[in-house]
Amino acid sequence: MELREIVEILDRRYPPHLAEDWDRVGLSVGDPKAAVTKVLFAVDPILAVADEAIASGAQLLVSVHPLLLRGVHSVVADTTKGAVVHRLIGAGVALYTAHTNADAVLGGVAEALARAVGLEETTPLIPHPEEPTLGIGRVGLLPKALPLGDFAQGVADAVPSTAQGVRVAGDLDLKVRKVAVLAGSGDKFFDAVREADADVYVTADLRHHPALEARERALLGDGRPALVDLSHYASEGVWLRSAADDLAAAAPVEAIVSAIRTDPWTARLGGLDS
Amino acid sequence: MELREIVEILDRRYPPHLAEDWDRVGLSVGDPKAAVTKVLFAVDPILAVADEAIASGAQLLVSVHPLLLRGVHSVVADTTKGAVVHRLIGAGVALYTAHTNADAVLGGVAEALARAVGLEETTPLIPHPEEPTLGIGRVGLLPKALPLGDFAQGVADAVPSTAQGVRVAGDLDLKVRKVAVLAGSGDKFFDAVREADADVYVTADLRHHPALEARERALLGDGRPALVDLSHYASEGVWLRSAADDLAAAAPVEAIVSAIRTDPWTARLGGLDS
Amino acid sequence: MELREIVEILDRRYPPHLAEDWDRVGLSVGDPKAAVTKVLFAVDPILAVADEAIASGAQLLVSVHPLLLRGVHSVVADTTKGAVVHRLIGAGVALYTAHTNADAVLGGVAEALARAVGLEETTPLIPHPEEPTLGIGRVGLLPKALPLGDFAQGVADAVPSTAQGVRVAGDLDLKVRKVAVLAGSGDKFFDAVREADADVYVTADLRHHPALEARERALLGDGRPALVDLSHYASEGVWLRSAADDLAAAAPVEAIVSAIRTDPWTARLGGLDS
Amino acid sequence: MELREIVEILDRRYPPHLAEDWDRVGLSVGDPKAAVTKVLFAVDPILAVADEAIASGAQLLVSVHPLLLRGVHSVVADTTKGAVVHRLIGAGVALYTAHTNADAVLGGVAEALARAVGLEETTPLIPHPEEPTLGIGRVGLLPKALPLGDFAQGVADAVPSTAQGVRVAGDLDLKVRKVAVLAGSGDKFFDAVREADADVYVTADLRHHPALEARERALLGDGRPALVDLSHYASEGVWLRSAADDLAAAAPVEAIVSAIRTDPWTARLGGLDS
Amino acid sequence: MELREIVEILDRRYPPHLAEDWDRVGLSVGDPKAAVTKVLFAVDPILAVADEAIASGAQLLVSVHPLLLRGVHSVVADTTKGAVVHRLIGAGVALYTAHTNADAVLGGVAEALARAVGLEETTPLIPHPEEPTLGIGRVGLLPKALPLGDFAQGVADAVPSTAQGVRVAGDLDLKVRKVAVLAGSGDKFFDAVREADADVYVTADLRHHPALEARERALLGDGRPALVDLSHYASEGVWLRSAADDLAAAAPVEAIVSAIRTDPWTARLGGLDS
Amino acid sequence: MELREIVEILDRRYPPHLAEDWDRVGLSVGDPKAAVTKVLFAVDPILAVADEAIASGAQLLVSVHPLLLRGVHSVVADTTKGAVVHRLIGAGVALYTAHTNADAVLGGVAEALARAVGLEETTPLIPHPEEPTLGIGRVGLLPKALPLGDFAQGVADAVPSTAQGVRVAGDLDLKVRKVAVLAGSGDKFFDAVREADADVYVTADLRHHPALEARERALLGDGRPALVDLSHYASEGVWLRSAADDLAAAAPVEAIVSAIRTDPWTARLGGLDS
Repeated sequence: MELREIVEILDRRYPPHLAEDWDRVGLSVGDPKAAVTKVLFAVDPILAVADEAIASGAQLLVSVHPLLLRGVHSVVADTTKGAVVHRLIGAGVALYTAHTNADAVLGGVAEALARAVGLEETTPLIPHPEEPTLGIGRVGLLPKALPLGDFAQGVADAVPSTAQGVRVAGDLDLKVRKVAVLAGSGDKFFDAVREADADVYVTADLRHHPALEARERALLGDGRPALVDLSHYASEGVWLRSAADDLAAAAPVEAIVSAIRTDPWTARLGGLDS
Repeated sequence: MELREIVEILDRRYPPHLAEDWDRVGLSVGDPKAAVTKVLFAVDPILAVADEAIASGAQLLVSVHPLLLRGVHSVVADTTKGAVVHRLIGAGVALYTAHTNADAVLGGVAEALARAVGLEETTPLIPHPEEPTLGIGRVGLLPKALPLGDFAQGVADAVPSTAQGVRVAGDLDLKVRKVAVLAGSGDKFFDAVREADADVYVTADLRHHPALEARERALLGDGRPALVDLSHYASEGVWLRSAADDLAAAAPVEAIVSAIRTDPWTARLGGLDS
Repeated sequence: MELREIVEILDRRYPPHLAEDWDRVGLSVGDPKAAVTKVLFAVDPILAVADEAIASGAQLLVSVHPLLLRGVHSVVADTTKGAVVHRLIGAGVALYTAHTNADAVLGGVAEALARAVGLEETTPLIPHPEEPTLGIGRVGLLPKALPLGDFAQGVADAVPSTAQGVRVAGDLDLKVRKVAVLAGSGDKFFDAVREADADVYVTADLRHHPALEARERALLGDGRPALVDLSHYASEGVWLRSAADDLAAAAPVEAIVSAIRTDPWTARLGGLDS
Repeated sequence: MELREIVEILDRRYPPHLAEDWDRVGLSVGDPKAAVTKVLFAVDPILAVADEAIASGAQLLVSVHPLLLRGVHSVVADTTKGAVVHRLIGAGVALYTAHTNADAVLGGVAEALARAVGLEETTPLIPHPEEPTLGIGRVGLLPKALPLGDFAQGVADAVPSTAQGVRVAGDLDLKVRKVAVLAGSGDKFFDAVREADADVYVTADLRHHPALEARERALLGDGRPALVDLSHYASEGVWLRSAADDLAAAAPVEAIVSAIRTDPWTARLGGLDS
Repeated sequence: MELREIVEILDRRYPPHLAEDWDRVGLSVGDPKAAVTKVLFAVDPILAVADEAIASGAQLLVSVHPLLLRGVHSVVADTTKGAVVHRLIGAGVALYTAHTNADAVLGGVAEALARAVGLEETTPLIPHPEEPTLGIGRVGLLPKALPLGDFAQGVADAVPSTAQGVRVAGDLDLKVRKVAVLAGSGDKFFDAVREADADVYVTADLRHHPALEARERALLGDGRPALVDLSHYASEGVWLRSAADDLAAAAPVEAIVSAIRTDPWTARLGGLDS
Repeated sequence: MELREIVEILDRRYPPHLAEDWDRVGLSVGDPKAAVTKVLFAVDPILAVADEAIASGAQLLVSVHPLLLRGVHSVVADTTKGAVVHRLIGAGVALYTAHTNADAVLGGVAEALARAVGLEETTPLIPHPEEPTLGIGRVGLLPKALPLGDFAQGVADAVPSTAQGVRVAGDLDLKVRKVAVLAGSGDKFFDAVREADADVYVTADLRHHPALEARERALLGDGRPALVDLSHYASEGVWLRSAADDLAAAAPVEAIVSAIRTDPWTARLGGLDS
């Protein structure tokens, strides 16, 4: 099948207009007329993943994160972005990105994370203005209320393992049932989480100041929402298998999932609980 | 001693003009004519720390982080900032902040962190334009080269413990000798670290994308710099004891250090090495 | 009654969404859980008014002007804003502001001024986009046409006296019947006044250039609108009594009006007519 | 003499580079090759003043305020600016403006006002960055200290009379000796006045909020600076006579002063002291 | 007839609200009460054209281009804009501009160009948002397809001659039938031309980079659209005759067309085809 | 020789810091470790030129214009920029740009144009702030004064021929001796040309409004500067031969010049002088 036909299938599945304004999705490397028989799905289009795609015989890499989110004026091979561009073009491998649009759709990244942590009856955390059944993040209910510590341990067991593990903030005995999830960096969405009246917010890449401010606000009230912070990679990696299966069902291609853990951290040391 | 005199002493020790443009340092709550006999030092001016100051009998809280970094139009007591303002004014406790200016000075936050990780002969990572012996962060040498894993374990042992512990990125056997340290959020300073030709960068609050991009660039070369990521609180908390001692030596006041760990995280679960 | 309940009553009477975008209204100092039995109404929340509130036994000061219109990063007691914050919090007095929203409502500041100058059948000078029966300023008719000089003398008699008095621009024999009023600074609203085809514009705080330009435009035509310029304080102070009565009718509190004239001017000397 | 030669003389006397960035000074109407024998000096280039210039036989009008401070896209004769342009061009009268540059020079507007209120040994309130003996406003000493009330009465007697007269804020018995003067709108210069440690600030066009805030700051201290507020026209009109004499001494032209009071106010009514 | 009546007629024919936001149309010089019996139409209101208007006895000049597109702070007679203002006012000649609004209307500039190049059944290239039958540029069909070279020669024959002639880009044998025309600078409208699926784009003032980029895009496809680039003057001058006739039919005035070619170029030398 | 060494040689010859802020110069495609034996010089890095480089056996294309002046988020092969990137990377050809920095240096683009039109003793038209002997454009003298028509004919004969030829504005008998030249788009530099007191300005890509305004200003004076407008391509193409020779002298590579005329225009028709 020609790459342009695969792109049409992917664009229907992950409509580009659902992406955030700042996002850059869709095809960014490759010749639309090239033939595609094998596709690799990964979170980050880093050099090791490009090499994995080439080694696997894929002609298309589908990533969650854009390669060229910031516009580039050079693709020279001794820059990180340029190295990937040279490697992919030299080997005839294309790159397609589905990011915030893949989060928004039914059966996308946000719902994959919601399913992984055990939610039912989910609705978007931030509904898309024109298509309110779609949107960023999800809010849903656990089948029954659990202590925060048990819930967080379940999350840690359900998502891809990384060196940093899962961080929890809040009283570990707090009973949680209503859960907000947001794959990727969650710093900017606390207002929506509070408005959703969630008991706990599962997200990634939280920084000190937003997390501390959120805890301060929670402690002025009843202590909710508690926080569960994953590695950014893990929060989005939960989606790759179903995304690959979706494509394989819709097009005559083989669809595989990257074996590379693109979380940057090698190890974790110290810590109160170590 | 009157608060205004303490403020003068602190302003000489941590000159406000050394602070970054976006920062907000100096006295932000209190009556300059009030008497001060006891001072509490802390990283974050949160409500629990305000209560600790009041309970301790201090009339002045010195914090690393500003309370009102973003301008406020209200200090109502059911907001996090307003609650602290009401609590402090109601109890007659003042608030003074030394932040990026405390990082810049000799014997300040950056040097406290450099000393904690074992550096000698330090110079600023980003020299102040007009006073180049001062500045943000520090670069220095370990007495002898160490494997990255051993170095990181030493850092984890030297800084205040937190639930999240210390994250390491890089080959754990890489020999490191030249070290860049930057207390607080380190995302924006990778260019300076590379220019300093550091073997390893010790900082805090690194996020997925900057850390991964930094590792990609390192891997296009010889793998350096490796990364050691602390909790934001720990990276700055190392300074509190010496800051309190400095003030007690300069003014007739008792200077104590907060016993509250203001890192927001309660626990950490899962992880490859758990 | 708890402060939070009084705030709810005031927010219903002066809906915050009617305020201009740049304005800062609502509660800005105080603990919503505190009890309130007495309320002082004033134009400007200056230190003398804060002291008056404290001395009167009020637990709430309601002002026309915001205390913290520009965001603050410090409330230190040797600044004007910080002194008021310290004084109020120290004495347990809250501060609530109703400003451009109090102008917009039926029976608010603009209508109090319109009534004071003798208007009937008033409509908003600048209707609120979504609620056009509300809005900034008012336009209405005098019961019968008057010479400008007589009308202006009547205005001077009707509003709170100040050192600066009332300024008039235009032919004192001009017959006026249609009147536009706008409490507070009127410089920016001449287009609306002309569009309303008013014979005279009663407002405050007009400056040389806008007033002269408006007179030039009038003189290219038939000399209308004439101008009547009050002190800013007087133009808004006409509202305080009815505002206090409104609250006393709606809540079990005593509501009093400040006795302090907050116009900054002590005296006025010279002048052609002195 | 040709207009271009008069312009050269005026440009030397009032160097355009001394004007503020936002200001628009110099020749704005007229043909540089026209002959000039008579010149009219005025504060505001309004239509009545243009007619006065024509009637007087002048070929040049010199004004303090620019006609086209905001750029125009049309000079149609039914607009205020266009009417003046048509009237002047039709009658062969040129327009030259010396505004903030006329304030800055030795013997300019600021010094004329300083002299009128009785100051000696004046220096600029806001020195010009590159020529610090010149600049905006002046600070100087009275020959001896006076009660504020007496000083203000003297100012009212010394400047051109207008309907609005002179407003005073402060304790009328306060002894004043050091005086800051600034002709035109004085709202933005309170910091400089305080830095100059002036006892009283004589300026024009002060509005409620800046004046009240300045009084609040004064009352947190020793009550200084007091304020004396003139009409904008009067604060600059004091300069016209000496400016006309200067030109007549430098060029073979007759130089006269406008008889029109361009303050917009016709009358003043009410007031505590009336 | 009074000028104000002529302006009303012209404003109805070329409604100002159809002009682009950045444009400045309508009356810009003149007294609305003046009498008008003769009108000169021209593309550019330059000094030679102003003199032509005066010499012809016209009291009104109607131009395509605004005189004061950028706001002016001076109309001194030794500047290009000021010289025209002085010349026109001195001779009692008004200036009215119909520019992008004259392009938008039925029978306006765009349609005059479309008619000149032989189009039928035209629709706007960029429809006006609220009145989609009007708008900038036109798209239409030739009666039958022509080789590009023949079409371009016909265009060159149909528009006013200038030194620079007509430039063509594309295969001269390409058959063209669907044509987009846009009078004036056409650099910014290539997207609309491609969306309209035009075979050739007739416009003016194209620069190297936009033209080369447009050709590159065309060559990635089937070579369309070809480009035909006129002088800016010629592209708008085709309208003058019909505009003058329109006014003469609607008002009791004589309407004539300028005989001055306002293209700035005197000659053209060299060139491959010379 | 490795590409990185060629880049070092070119960067010394055309220092990147001499480029304008908005410009994007240096290596933008290629692997710095690749070997280079042959280099093609061209004005525009369009697809036909990329193909010419590949066909010629060159491993490096040096262009005047940047390929990615505006940052790109995609290099897909069906876009004009992406097609060139794919073509070059696929064939192992690098791209290096020397643009405004090549204009600034001694012996660069501006001097090549100055030499071509016969100038001696040239100095920069707009000197570089820190290196005033370098800079954009050049001003110089002809050996003796010539009529404008003769001079322009000489220019037309000296630069690469294009369909559009050379346009001239001004009296063809005007004697010209002092000449300003600026390769590329010259619209923004008229102030510098007038300040240099040049008799004629030789540049490219002039548009109607700037050229007409410049002529109006000239005609208010003595008619100077006249204008000579080249095709953008021709104004920069004069440099290619010497640039290639420079590199061949400095590095062990073959350096050739593109045979493709990248001016977008195919033909020119009509015109007064045709």
